[in-house]
Amino acid sequence: MDIHTNMEKEAVPAMKKRIRMTVAYDGTNYHGWQQQNNGITIEEELNRHLSELLEEPIQVIGGSRTDAGVHAMGNVAVFDTRSRMPARKVSYALNQKLPKDIRVQKSEEVPADWHPRHCESRKTYEYRIYRAEFPMPVKRLYSYFTYHALDVRRMREAAAYLEGEHDFKSFCQTGAQVESTVRTIYSLWVEEQGADLVIRVCGNGFLYNMVRIIAGTLIEVGQGKREPESMPEILAAGKRSAAGPTAPAHGLMLIKYEWLD
Amino acid sequence: MDIHTNMEKEAVPAMKKRIRMTVAYDGTNYHGWQQQNNGITIEEELNRHLSELLEEPIQVIGGSRTDAGVHAMGNVAVFDTRSRMPARKVSYALNQKLPKDIRVQKSEEVPADWHPRHCESRKTYEYRIYRAEFPMPVKRLYSYFTYHALDVRRMREAAAYLEGEHDFKSFCQTGAQVESTVRTIYSLWVEEQGADLVIRVCGNGFLYNMVRIIAGTLIEVGQGKREPESMPEILAAGKRSAAGPTAPAHGLMLIKYEWLD
Repeated sequence: MDIHTNMEKEAVPAMKKRIRMTVAYDGTNYHGWQQQNNGITIEEELNRHLSELLEEPIQVIGGSRTDAGVHAMGNVAVFDTRSRMPARKVSYALNQKLPKDIRVQKSEEVPADWHPRHCESRKTYEYRIYRAEFPMPVKRLYSYFTYHALDVRRMREAAAYLEGEHDFKSFCQTGAQVESTVRTIYSLWVEEQGADLVIRVCGNGFLYNMVRIIAGTLIEVGQGKREPESMPEILAAGKRSAAGPTAPAHGLMLIKYEWLD
Repeated sequence: MDIHTNMEKEAVPAMKKRIRMTVAYDGTNYHGWQQQNNGITIEEELNRHLSELLEEPIQVIGGSRTDAGVHAMGNVAVFDTRSRMPARKVSYALNQKLPKDIRVQKSEEVPADWHPRHCESRKTYEYRIYRAEFPMPVKRLYSYFTYHALDVRRMREAAAYLEGEHDFKSFCQTGAQVESTVRTIYSLWVEEQGADLVIRVCGNGFLYNMVRIIAGTLIEVGQGKREPESMPEILAAGKRSAAGPTAPAHGLMLIKYEWLD
């Protein structure tokens, strides 16, 4: 034991560093990402266990503030720390503490000014629909069940109108405060996987409830309640009431978050 | 209201009929299929809700008595009733009463002597393994997580030795009371589905824990702890200790049950 060296180490505080984590979770038992008063959240669990692990108060910044019940395979969180723990080791150590329905998939150091919401990024979400006469218990937490027939060809036609850069104000929950409601959807596919129908959407950003409102609108098109050709009118209307219902949260999963840096 | 007709109906009891149901469930919160004292079971839930629905004591006979934590998309249960409810309607009415993690997929009348375990049948099970550095929360309830590399080619070689008719005594949990330990495996495939590895087995019947012991043994082969060529020796040994460990229950799903009638 070199006591002298240890004392020197303690005297000089470690440099502050920023760590980025890829975070996966089952949203079933959480009141969404963001800290609030009426139930436990993903953010709260991360803050609590990181603070305990690194022995300093930690406050993460989330990439996507997912709603209650929404799942993620690849959300992102960054935080600053003076801990000497190597960035890569944080995932292993933190996963020992977190509840089983939250798991860090990766942890790495990023530049001190890197912020998940202030840089160009691409997010991919999937909305999963299970089509059958009766619900399937093992699918109930991760897909929206419907016994209605859905015309997939019509849904694909409608989806094509939403690709590209548009003002998605009609697909944004009212009350959300954002500077601009213009977003770009790089791709919006409707894919059949057996009895599952998966709406996969990739874009540079999504407004509050936007993916769930797109899913709810495409479902109505699939049921014949709306025409695929009505999508441009919905976009042009610029009001929430023009679009379809907000599909239930548990069918939605944030698949991945990518940065162009 | 034709009171006279109603009275006549009550005077003549309905014919007894046998109803077969296809039952799906998430085994996470159950102590398996079979009624017991230390926890709630699938059988118990079915009996309780059927008795309430049909207003007579109902006792189902199960096709496969799955263990605690094992899931099913297509287990089978039959029961006798004098209720006038049409067989097909039972599924709809019962699903209104059952908890969300149990759902009847189909109900139909069968001959009075039909018994799920006394007729030629074919059962298909899947054992799902998720391979990654860290567990994925949304997969945790329905697959076995491993960070060990698995050599799929070796697992397939080993699997081929187990296909066909064999005495599977080495792959049967000790203590199980059965007349014969000879079973026929029609097919045993190891399939890659992205990060998931699925062991799919179809046979005329399975001994207690047989699929989980096959999975545990194939996993050891995949890890290089056993040779594919050692399968014939394991079969020949005729003792449980010759095979690998029993893989955890939550990775197992009874996919379907078919009859040759």
